[in-house]
Amino acid sequence: MRIVIRGGTVLSSTGAVPADVVVDGERVAALVAPDALTGDWWGAADRVIDASGKYVLPGGIDAHTHMEMPFGGTRASDTFETGTRAAAWGGTTTIIDFAVQRRGSSLLSTLDEWHARADGNCAVDYGFHMIVSDVNDATVKEMDACLAAGVNSFKMFMAYPGAFYATDGEILRVMGRAAENGAMVMMHAENGIAIDELVARALAAGRTDPVQHGLTRPPELEAEAVHRAVTLARVTGAPLYIVHLSSSHALDEVTAARDTGQNVFAETCPQYLHLSLRDLARPGFEGAKFVCSPPLRPAEHQAPLWRGLRTNDLALVSTDHCPFCFSEQKELGRGDFTRIPNGLPGVEHRMDLIHQGVVAGELSLARWVEVTSTTPARMFGLYPRKGVIAPGSDADIVVYDPTARQTLSASTHHMNVDYSAYEGMEVTGRVETVLSRGRVVVDRGEYHGSPGHGRFLDRALCQYLN
Amino acid sequence: MRIVIRGGTVLSSTGAVPADVVVDGERVAALVAPDALTGDWWGAADRVIDASGKYVLPGGIDAHTHMEMPFGGTRASDTFETGTRAAAWGGTTTIIDFAVQRRGSSLLSTLDEWHARADGNCAVDYGFHMIVSDVNDATVKEMDACLAAGVNSFKMFMAYPGAFYATDGEILRVMGRAAENGAMVMMHAENGIAIDELVARALAAGRTDPVQHGLTRPPELEAEAVHRAVTLARVTGAPLYIVHLSSSHALDEVTAARDTGQNVFAETCPQYLHLSLRDLARPGFEGAKFVCSPPLRPAEHQAPLWRGLRTNDLALVSTDHCPFCFSEQKELGRGDFTRIPNGLPGVEHRMDLIHQGVVAGELSLARWVEVTSTTPARMFGLYPRKGVIAPGSDADIVVYDPTARQTLSASTHHMNVDYSAYEGMEVTGRVETVLSRGRVVVDRGEYHGSPGHGRFLDRALCQYLN
Amino acid sequence: MRIVIRGGTVLSSTGAVPADVVVDGERVAALVAPDALTGDWWGAADRVIDASGKYVLPGGIDAHTHMEMPFGGTRASDTFETGTRAAAWGGTTTIIDFAVQRRGSSLLSTLDEWHARADGNCAVDYGFHMIVSDVNDATVKEMDACLAAGVNSFKMFMAYPGAFYATDGEILRVMGRAAENGAMVMMHAENGIAIDELVARALAAGRTDPVQHGLTRPPELEAEAVHRAVTLARVTGAPLYIVHLSSSHALDEVTAARDTGQNVFAETCPQYLHLSLRDLARPGFEGAKFVCSPPLRPAEHQAPLWRGLRTNDLALVSTDHCPFCFSEQKELGRGDFTRIPNGLPGVEHRMDLIHQGVVAGELSLARWVEVTSTTPARMFGLYPRKGVIAPGSDADIVVYDPTARQTLSASTHHMNVDYSAYEGMEVTGRVETVLSRGRVVVDRGEYHGSPGHGRFLDRALCQYLN
Amino acid sequence: MRIVIRGGTVLSSTGAVPADVVVDGERVAALVAPDALTGDWWGAADRVIDASGKYVLPGGIDAHTHMEMPFGGTRASDTFETGTRAAAWGGTTTIIDFAVQRRGSSLLSTLDEWHARADGNCAVDYGFHMIVSDVNDATVKEMDACLAAGVNSFKMFMAYPGAFYATDGEILRVMGRAAENGAMVMMHAENGIAIDELVARALAAGRTDPVQHGLTRPPELEAEAVHRAVTLARVTGAPLYIVHLSSSHALDEVTAARDTGQNVFAETCPQYLHLSLRDLARPGFEGAKFVCSPPLRPAEHQAPLWRGLRTNDLALVSTDHCPFCFSEQKELGRGDFTRIPNGLPGVEHRMDLIHQGVVAGELSLARWVEVTSTTPARMFGLYPRKGVIAPGSDADIVVYDPTARQTLSASTHHMNVDYSAYEGMEVTGRVETVLSRGRVVVDRGEYHGSPGHGRFLDRALCQYLN
Repeated sequence: MRIVIRGGTVLSSTGAVPADVVVDGERVAALVAPDALTGDWWGAADRVIDASGKYVLPGGIDAHTHMEMPFGGTRASDTFETGTRAAAWGGTTTIIDFAVQRRGSSLLSTLDEWHARADGNCAVDYGFHMIVSDVNDATVKEMDACLAAGVNSFKMFMAYPGAFYATDGEILRVMGRAAENGAMVMMHAENGIAIDELVARALAAGRTDPVQHGLTRPPELEAEAVHRAVTLARVTGAPLYIVHLSSSHALDEVTAARDTGQNVFAETCPQYLHLSLRDLARPGFEGAKFVCSPPLRPAEHQAPLWRGLRTNDLALVSTDHCPFCFSEQKELGRGDFTRIPNGLPGVEHRMDLIHQGVVAGELSLARWVEVTSTTPARMFGLYPRKGVIAPGSDADIVVYDPTARQTLSASTHHMNVDYSAYEGMEVTGRVETVLSRGRVVVDRGEYHGSPGHGRFLDRALCQYLN
Repeated sequence: MRIVIRGGTVLSSTGAVPADVVVDGERVAALVAPDALTGDWWGAADRVIDASGKYVLPGGIDAHTHMEMPFGGTRASDTFETGTRAAAWGGTTTIIDFAVQRRGSSLLSTLDEWHARADGNCAVDYGFHMIVSDVNDATVKEMDACLAAGVNSFKMFMAYPGAFYATDGEILRVMGRAAENGAMVMMHAENGIAIDELVARALAAGRTDPVQHGLTRPPELEAEAVHRAVTLARVTGAPLYIVHLSSSHALDEVTAARDTGQNVFAETCPQYLHLSLRDLARPGFEGAKFVCSPPLRPAEHQAPLWRGLRTNDLALVSTDHCPFCFSEQKELGRGDFTRIPNGLPGVEHRMDLIHQGVVAGELSLARWVEVTSTTPARMFGLYPRKGVIAPGSDADIVVYDPTARQTLSASTHHMNVDYSAYEGMEVTGRVETVLSRGRVVVDRGEYHGSPGHGRFLDRALCQYLN
Repeated sequence: MRIVIRGGTVLSSTGAVPADVVVDGERVAALVAPDALTGDWWGAADRVIDASGKYVLPGGIDAHTHMEMPFGGTRASDTFETGTRAAAWGGTTTIIDFAVQRRGSSLLSTLDEWHARADGNCAVDYGFHMIVSDVNDATVKEMDACLAAGVNSFKMFMAYPGAFYATDGEILRVMGRAAENGAMVMMHAENGIAIDELVARALAAGRTDPVQHGLTRPPELEAEAVHRAVTLARVTGAPLYIVHLSSSHALDEVTAARDTGQNVFAETCPQYLHLSLRDLARPGFEGAKFVCSPPLRPAEHQAPLWRGLRTNDLALVSTDHCPFCFSEQKELGRGDFTRIPNGLPGVEHRMDLIHQGVVAGELSLARWVEVTSTTPARMFGLYPRKGVIAPGSDADIVVYDPTARQTLSASTHHMNVDYSAYEGMEVTGRVETVLSRGRVVVDRGEYHGSPGHGRFLDRALCQYLN
Repeated sequence: MRIVIRGGTVLSSTGAVPADVVVDGERVAALVAPDALTGDWWGAADRVIDASGKYVLPGGIDAHTHMEMPFGGTRASDTFETGTRAAAWGGTTTIIDFAVQRRGSSLLSTLDEWHARADGNCAVDYGFHMIVSDVNDATVKEMDACLAAGVNSFKMFMAYPGAFYATDGEILRVMGRAAENGAMVMMHAENGIAIDELVARALAAGRTDPVQHGLTRPPELEAEAVHRAVTLARVTGAPLYIVHLSSSHALDEVTAARDTGQNVFAETCPQYLHLSLRDLARPGFEGAKFVCSPPLRPAEHQAPLWRGLRTNDLALVSTDHCPFCFSEQKELGRGDFTRIPNGLPGVEHRMDLIHQGVVAGELSLARWVEVTSTTPARMFGLYPRKGVIAPGSDADIVVYDPTARQTLSASTHHMNVDYSAYEGMEVTGRVETVLSRGRVVVDRGEYHGSPGHGRFLDRALCQYLN
């Protein structure tokens, strides 16, 4: 199968060029200057996609999703099947999901379990990070085996005592091994021990509404955890990746660390750029729709986060996609905000939501591609297979109409969740056609993908270190 | 003329891919995955360059040169002809040189003069920055005409009172216009007024050796000027580009400004990364060979500068190429260091000298390409014509042998100057073949270029703003 | 003459103690615990002042006044006679005024001139700083003679080009000498060269109202000048004192310098703590009453300035007292804000206005004494003669009623100026009795002082260096 | 009993004045200018101490001692009797010792226990801080009762997991109460959890020498803990006092916090100013003499600590006096550095060791008094009873000979410990006479004190808050 995407503006992380893209099978065969393709090539094209007036960009990479993740007795509402299909709809052709070690389980058996969940179900390619919940001699050793199995990023939690929480000593152990084998340590940076005390005070005082979720997790305690993680990483020499950074306080810590040349990176998420504590404070129990951790912040944090994306102190944008239906799931927390499942839906709208930054002048086109695709690929060892339209790369390609308008809504989205965090929001730009490894999976409002097309990605080590 | 560069590793600012590059006339026609080229294409190739085991990278861009520049009664010893030929030898296929307004002259007549010098003489493409020496109503107005003429970067000096020095008020005027018309203000940031006082003290005390050039220009006075320029730029909203940043003190100021998201950029030069105050203090008058401004710094500044290149607080590397022969030129300053012409030769060795950073693990391959080619192109409005190997780009391409060894020396270099600042230095890596707009100008130790091949580049505005 | 101040709370820069103060002649003879004085001493008392329920504190020191200062063809409206009398009324028993060198005059003749103005006219003791307007070999040498004459602090201006403005080279020269002879360099830190450009733009655009005085002198240009002065001081090793610091931007620079241990100090003034740009923008020409340099800032600068006073990044509070009558003087600038004489009246109200910080919880009682008296004394070589109530100290003592209420107004103040910058402001606390060198000069609303009582203070070098 | 100390130079935290000091009973009755005392007073003097050529300063306050403290099965070798006697010998007339709550005990019973130890045994006055080891509802409530009992400073440990270690949640609880009742939270700031991991690695690798104590407690982990404590304090609003700060890294965190105006304070100790990691690395087991926590640091930390004392980012100097004999006590850790009792002797030499900073030009005389006496008094609610020579103050007075020379040695010191950390060190300056509450306890090399003279100090809240 040979496809030529013709007449578009091909975007990369450094700019835009008019060019035709030749796809041969699953890969990009060539990028060709307009009118330079000879008849011979045209003859060989099975299909020509007209991309005039459109952007042609590398498929999005969402480096932080939680499909069907277990959480407090329930499970994130998107399966690998529904979640990756929604991703494809939104121009995201790779996800990296988190395998979640249970205390007492081994890392490899965890990986097996997650492979079983994903295998045969995914619409687009996928990789795994590993959440390490149980730090001991065996798991530290198993890290090497995970690397051999294509999983080289290990997430730890400074939050959630009693669940995923790792002590500073445990973090140091994992980082020590990571410094030796080249793995990346990912960190949920919130001081959960301190937060639990604030939560206890709130509950004791009868403050149980969803907004309390935000008020008991102040940005100072996110920044503190970032600072601590940075210190532990410095002591060990391990690279560090802060997930879902939400506040200017935390950003300042990342900036300070990066100024010294330390290998510290951070992602933010669309919800921290577009939503705020005000949403969490919506009347009634409506705020529960916006409960995630770290929490949404006061709106004045948004401008610094956009700035951080410009300055590269925020390296990329992931979604932390972890949907729970309002009905039956979020509602578990009525009368006790601590029981609201933590997480927002988002995998479908990342490309569009960050494109709004381009529309608003916050980001350049090149930077849009960089933070949504190129840097995730480099950060997590997928480049140049992913993250760029280059000869030999996987043909994960999005044709994007930059001027189309759409309205986000649960009534039209494809994620398996009964509400949208962005209900009614009008956005500029829309995915028109999506190729995943050379196959057209979305095209002008129709879905042509299938479960099982997506394959597991055996990732190399980070390609983005200083 | 169709050339295929085959079997190499094509480098970009984000990484490396194995690919063949098809050049058609002056431009890149296609990048093609290995083995994907059909016979049809091969048949059309006039020449196939075997790049197996080699890097294929976008031609270097040296954004800071001073060919045949007048300085204190003499003139830089490289003409546009000899200088651009040396550039080509070293894998640099674009230079941006400085047109130097004399007090009393107009900007446009200055530009005419520089066009007259360069036209018909250059071996590779070239653009101009404009040095503004005479700030008045007319020159501020003329800035717009310069933009129309493809020159949109205006350099000013906080050093050299009595010569190029501009007052803060004059800087503010030029920045004010730049903020409106999109021009870039480039700054030689050293507090020349304060330096002159230190120089006067040194001379009064009978300290006249070349090392005094360094001691009377302390890094604090470079950092101070950077800070001041940053402030003036903030007050006006103009983008700012610090030329030839030499010290960790100055770097700290750039870092602080960039952390706020301000459009402040800086270049450093190979001499600040590889040489030091110790060279300036060589016995006898030998130190004169190393007199440039800002001066070479104590060696402990080098590590922070390499770090700045990694963190992008230093965006790119230029040479400030401004050679003066030791004999007759540098010697003008025997007995009075203030009369030593300021400047070092360097245009030929930039690619190699920064490649040493790759060899030493200071920079990634991708970053080497970025700081020597891609970012200069974006910074100065040449992308994607220059700075990347992409369909439609100018075929400015270097085939580089990463394992070859060479020894730098005046006896082998091609610059028109009687000494080398790096005499005897062994380096790893060597330019093998160089194409300038599709023409092979250097190939395995032979020169095939000619004066007049190089054309003036009508540059767009900066493509690198936050 | 022996006076005992009995039953009061004696304040120092570290706290408060109940004690009786015995004054013998011009000096403090003893501090005595309550009830510890024997009959012998009581018998010798010519007068007993009952200070029950009152504070007894060292007389205020206003280290920055401009009595009868020439400015643009007019002269500050308070003479040494009227100004020091007003000072006494307000509990300030020492002023340090500025002798102003004219270009072409020598420092010593300037000093003679100022001595002639003050001698025989002052109600309280006074010292001089020297404004250096003409930096040359002779004046730099004369600095030593000034030291011998008790004047060891030399003020320079980075503002006012064409008038007091000194170049960075001139500043470096004076600092170089100061580093050798122990003098203090005081700095009016605003980038006057840049400001003049902003002023020219404003005038060219027809913006001539008083508020333009503030808008053309942005805080960034104050901070820049502070940073530059700090750098020049670091290069030379001279101590540096920033006068009338007005903005949080400038404060940040002082803080950063002080964190490194550099001998950098700053004062602020009551007007920057209590008034704002809004006053400068009062309708009509009313804003002219508030024209001083640096200008009043937006109100959000006030909280950082109070904080700076707490953290000692602002060492003390002076007034920059330089009154011009609204009628005939301020009015010179109708239609052209640049012609409004720069300066506010203030010498009378400093103690009260800073006491409001105590009332509001911004400052401790001890800190009130420290910033208004003890630190000025130590900073300018007057301790322990001034700045503390200690055995042997000059009996400059204020009995202050902390609970009295008063309303500030031109109708009741004693400064020779036709308006009050604080008209109608109600304050808590009031001076009740004032002793100057053992003489009661103000007592319960009556004035008992006389011109000529005040004597010139031959000051020692700074006693406050790190 | 009336004593007059005559002819000396009386020092305070702001400077020096020649004055006579009249002591009547336990208190200072008067400070009198030289020659101002009438015959009447002289007649009443029981004793006149000639202080000509000597300093007369307020008795030292050592705010951090551990007399007879239990540690790992042994006990600090100085009892309250021997330790306070040694303090008196060294010019320290007040100590504040730590009562140590055992898990399961109440705070008040702990206080009773410590009162029982100290009561009737102390040579000089003493107060208590409380170490909180067991944070629960009852102990948090008991904090108020401690305040009522004159103990309002509560120390917590971020180090020593399994022993004193408090979680961040527990710290937050105690700080929350402190913010309400005005107590001070004192913090041993080292990340003990992370350190334990480093210790485990060292032991696993067979590294057991005393120097490992230092190498497993890197300064980064002290700074991290300071940063975290600062954050927790900011979240709650409690004032924070960092004990025994040892490194420039930690100092930087304190400086940053203080720059924001937060009520964060820190002490350092003489051992961090005069000793270094090199002592800990002395051959054989000699290094054990220098084991304390935080550990001695590389010598380059000393200059920043002296600078911090100048800038007041270090508010005062305490000793952390906690002696263990080399024989039998320190030796418990032969072959396993973790079993070496942590602590150094020091209470006797603090005044002399900090005076060396005056001799070396690091500190002014006034600052010497401030960091050793006045600030400790204000910080811990003892002013003006202690920390100053003022009418009504306790007559805790030291006559100090600034020019005498002495050699520190275990053979001459009065502490109950078999080695000196400063063995053989020559110092300039020596205590000559010491008064404790009006009683001469040390005089020209003779001891006149007695156990039980020292009384418990019921302290007020901190008088040093911003």
